[in-house]
Amino acid sequence: MKKEEKHIDLKAIDNPDFLKDLSYRDLDVLSSDITNYLVDVTSKTGGHLSSNLGVVDATLALCRSFDFKKDKIIFDVGHQSYTYKLLTGRDLTKLRQKDGISGFQKVNESPYDHFECGHSSTSISVALGMATARDLKGDDYSVISFIGDSSIVNGLAFEGLNTCQDNKHKIIIVLNDNEMSISRPVGGISHLLRRFQFSKLYAKSKNLFIRISSKGKVGIKIYNFFYKLKNAIKRRFLTMTIFDNLGFSVVGPIDGHDIKGMEKAFAKAKRNSKSTIVIIKTIKGKGYKYCEEDKEGKWHGVAPFDKETGQPLKKPGVSWSEYFSSLIDKKMMNDKDVVTITPATGYGSELLYLEKAYPTRVIDVGIAEEHALTYAGGLSISGIHPIICIYSTFLQRAYDELSHDIARMKLDATILVDRAGLVGNDGETHQGIYDEAFLYSIPNVTISMPSNTLDANYLFDQSFEKHGPFVVRFPREEIKQNELIYPFKYGRAIKLKEGKKLAVVSLGPIIHEVLDRVEKEGLDITIYNSLFIKPIDLEMVKELLNYDKVIIYDVYGTKEGLAIHLIEALNNLSYKGVIKTLCVPDKFIKQATIKEQREDLHISLDDLFMEINK
Amino acid sequence: MKKEEKHIDLKAIDNPDFLKDLSYRDLDVLSSDITNYLVDVTSKTGGHLSSNLGVVDATLALCRSFDFKKDKIIFDVGHQSYTYKLLTGRDLTKLRQKDGISGFQKVNESPYDHFECGHSSTSISVALGMATARDLKGDDYSVISFIGDSSIVNGLAFEGLNTCQDNKHKIIIVLNDNEMSISRPVGGISHLLRRFQFSKLYAKSKNLFIRISSKGKVGIKIYNFFYKLKNAIKRRFLTMTIFDNLGFSVVGPIDGHDIKGMEKAFAKAKRNSKSTIVIIKTIKGKGYKYCEEDKEGKWHGVAPFDKETGQPLKKPGVSWSEYFSSLIDKKMMNDKDVVTITPATGYGSELLYLEKAYPTRVIDVGIAEEHALTYAGGLSISGIHPIICIYSTFLQRAYDELSHDIARMKLDATILVDRAGLVGNDGETHQGIYDEAFLYSIPNVTISMPSNTLDANYLFDQSFEKHGPFVVRFPREEIKQNELIYPFKYGRAIKLKEGKKLAVVSLGPIIHEVLDRVEKEGLDITIYNSLFIKPIDLEMVKELLNYDKVIIYDVYGTKEGLAIHLIEALNNLSYKGVIKTLCVPDKFIKQATIKEQREDLHISLDDLFMEINK
Repeated sequence: MKKEEKHIDLKAIDNPDFLKDLSYRDLDVLSSDITNYLVDVTSKTGGHLSSNLGVVDATLALCRSFDFKKDKIIFDVGHQSYTYKLLTGRDLTKLRQKDGISGFQKVNESPYDHFECGHSSTSISVALGMATARDLKGDDYSVISFIGDSSIVNGLAFEGLNTCQDNKHKIIIVLNDNEMSISRPVGGISHLLRRFQFSKLYAKSKNLFIRISSKGKVGIKIYNFFYKLKNAIKRRFLTMTIFDNLGFSVVGPIDGHDIKGMEKAFAKAKRNSKSTIVIIKTIKGKGYKYCEEDKEGKWHGVAPFDKETGQPLKKPGVSWSEYFSSLIDKKMMNDKDVVTITPATGYGSELLYLEKAYPTRVIDVGIAEEHALTYAGGLSISGIHPIICIYSTFLQRAYDELSHDIARMKLDATILVDRAGLVGNDGETHQGIYDEAFLYSIPNVTISMPSNTLDANYLFDQSFEKHGPFVVRFPREEIKQNELIYPFKYGRAIKLKEGKKLAVVSLGPIIHEVLDRVEKEGLDITIYNSLFIKPIDLEMVKELLNYDKVIIYDVYGTKEGLAIHLIEALNNLSYKGVIKTLCVPDKFIKQATIKEQREDLHISLDDLFMEINK
Repeated sequence: MKKEEKHIDLKAIDNPDFLKDLSYRDLDVLSSDITNYLVDVTSKTGGHLSSNLGVVDATLALCRSFDFKKDKIIFDVGHQSYTYKLLTGRDLTKLRQKDGISGFQKVNESPYDHFECGHSSTSISVALGMATARDLKGDDYSVISFIGDSSIVNGLAFEGLNTCQDNKHKIIIVLNDNEMSISRPVGGISHLLRRFQFSKLYAKSKNLFIRISSKGKVGIKIYNFFYKLKNAIKRRFLTMTIFDNLGFSVVGPIDGHDIKGMEKAFAKAKRNSKSTIVIIKTIKGKGYKYCEEDKEGKWHGVAPFDKETGQPLKKPGVSWSEYFSSLIDKKMMNDKDVVTITPATGYGSELLYLEKAYPTRVIDVGIAEEHALTYAGGLSISGIHPIICIYSTFLQRAYDELSHDIARMKLDATILVDRAGLVGNDGETHQGIYDEAFLYSIPNVTISMPSNTLDANYLFDQSFEKHGPFVVRFPREEIKQNELIYPFKYGRAIKLKEGKKLAVVSLGPIIHEVLDRVEKEGLDITIYNSLFIKPIDLEMVKELLNYDKVIIYDVYGTKEGLAIHLIEALNNLSYKGVIKTLCVPDKFIKQATIKEQREDLHISLDDLFMEINK
């Protein structure tokens, strides 16, 4: 007779203590219930799905093996912490919504969240910092970095790994090897992970060795040879990975869906006196067929979808990413001296079909933003024009490389900055609002932002015209088909409308909404599409001197970008009128929809028109 | 009878082609002559010495093995390229001087310079970029990254290494292992390099193995076991390093002073079809006793010195670095919850004695700026206050980590930014003039700059007062003992002098020179020591409204820092007077003395007083 399954009420969970009383059978039921719940929640809110489904079991094992009231865990990137959030008593129904639960760990959200990530590969350094603090203070707790196989290849993670040995503060790294990453694993490390099964040969040969040497017939020389070799083999065969080389103890690989097995491994890691890596192998997207079957990464981050069909609830139009991808395609077709580089965001930037079309010229370097830019420098100086497709927030990590390895030599490069502006539900860690400002601090860089397809074509083409590094930034939204026609010149703004009352300088797609509303309200004002953020168009600035009031409206960047430099340019020409700015403030902006964020920051269209009509 | 030594006239060298006609004996003479010449030149000009002396022989071997008219070489960091510069026909007598030869590779200086470095660990990614371009264009040449053991541990270098395998474009890496680095090698990788001699055991046991198995007496099982094992051992013993794991062919280690041996190794690397690492072991500072004996790194970069005594020609006073080091000492003595972190610049930042005094709390993480900041985040959230000592130019590489892992959570940290402002002879790659601007783009960061010891004490103390990340930046010069006394408040500027004609807002040590000259000329003007760069002191801004003219004088940063934000603040309060700025322009600034640089940029004291007296 089949025993009845014990279901836990997921919404009633306060903390993970109850897990310790469950049988492995109960845990399997719970795992399956959590999986269904996560699919249900994200089908309504959108969010990261595959990575969360892959680690339901691992999270259960971790929460049984450790006590996160005192032990610390840092989920690298943090987007795979939904199960952890659920088990530590958080209601996911408003996941990623304004005033709801964040899609990442957040210190203010729960005492169970010990640090905050969002960008990849920070967790090892953070863990080492926590472990150092623990040891200096004489405390006693475990510190765990939970990191994926694609995040561990980033330079920052490596610096953390490389420093562990010297600092001698024990940490535990749980390396979640799901053989997939956002798109696909890249580089030598991932090949290495694929070779882990090699250690089976050791186990087999060790048994044989014992049998042979016990017979004592092969002479003293062989015995000595064997004796020396045994230890050497032991050292080398068991400790043959990069992690061993760096001084870690390695446990696994373990089946990341075998809770009991993982508990044993975690117990061993706890007992070890030195820093330990537990390698678990998980199936990304486990338990939901569309995720399990996904080889491209389209179920990594999802918009609301129909659970049954797996289809998105809203059929999206052509995105800016898609449009630029088509421009890249056209360019690469006609010019074989062009290479496209992406740091693991090929899916998001709509490059997958290009990777197939140009296998040697569309290069996914993995989560390695620094390398992406410096590599582009090497290409550019050798006569290959690089196009770098990167999200605004991830470009931060290559600030030095863009400056030092590209801009300083004024090397030509097209830098397509995707997800520029407010990003909505991903929140603070992913805002694309800072690049205008930090790029401005680098000499020789052109910074631009199109408002429609016409602008996009012009700017993309210009980026190949020997201006040095040329940034084209665009938001994560649908692109507007252009209805206007106007002429372009490098560094020049576009006067979209001439009026008397005042002048508005704006940029990006929103400018068409501004224009529409101005027409509708019949306002007698001038509107410029700045188009370029750097350099500032000095001809436009001269014309602005004729207005008593200038409003700078930039909803895609902080005022340290376009706005402040336009103010300076006006000051340089002794402008005596009033300058008002409606820009993203110099703050970290929390999750909400982009519309809500703009309203909260008083930079909505209504706010602009209130200022215009003052 | 001793044969007469053949000496080459070093000043007559046009290109390295002549090297191929020299005997190894001639080369030894040449090596020794170059060594003496380099000591002679740097004793007059200052510069990097130890690293250059260490690679004289390796550079000779490289220039004989490759043809750098077509083959490409990137010297990582590039400060060890003096011999290369000499051999490619450059006159070093004006090394690092205005209009002279740069201390780093420079594309415009010679067709033999193929890329430009300055910051560490870029060369592998650059080489891979060049190799990709070569293969796409169907060209045929070698690309070489010449990199030291301390540079290869940086995350960027690792990203390059990790990507080599997938891209399948062959490069040669010459890993110069001098067991020293700027201060000392750090981390697992350097331990690994120390273990290279292990492969001797393999060589020995291999011979034994051949002898044993040839006897054919040990039975089929043993034979099979041996057979499998042999290949496994071969793979593992010979290829046991992180480099093998990442898919490289490894040659060496080779004696980096044995030119013939290196030539063989380079020939092998050339023949190899896959990317190859040639490890050479060199003696840093070889041939000049003071350098050879130096264990602390004080002969890494030197000011002009007496060749005989090794003593600096000018006894320097107390530097800003030294003064802050003493403040750190005092703080750490009294507060055990403070940790100091340095990314391999302990010598430059005068921290070596602190490393000895607080071995567990002064932590050199190696050239790992990203890790330094993220690690600090982990410490800070765990109740240990981190002090990060970092050069302005190297902080660029941790832009993302400062923002994402510290500022976003507003974690407390003291960030001492050394070498802020123009740096003189190191030139473009090392200028400390951008941090004001790029730090400004990060929310929650306080940016400050002291002018004297009084300011330094106040700002250092304030950085522990829960303001979040707190940057104190200071230049590479002698500190002024304070003669003034004035009160402080967080975020407030200091009015040093009250006058009527106009107001000057300045900051940093130069403000005392300004003050002296104003007194001497008897000018009726107001002078503010801004002290804080971010936040802008709004009380000061209100007071500035009373003046017809405001001059912002910042010789330590680009105008995108203090200046432009002060202009914005004045605009926000509808200031209608004239604002003039004398700041470092938004450019990459070439080598010269700091004085020359200021004159060329029209931001000298004379320029300021010309503006004041207009």
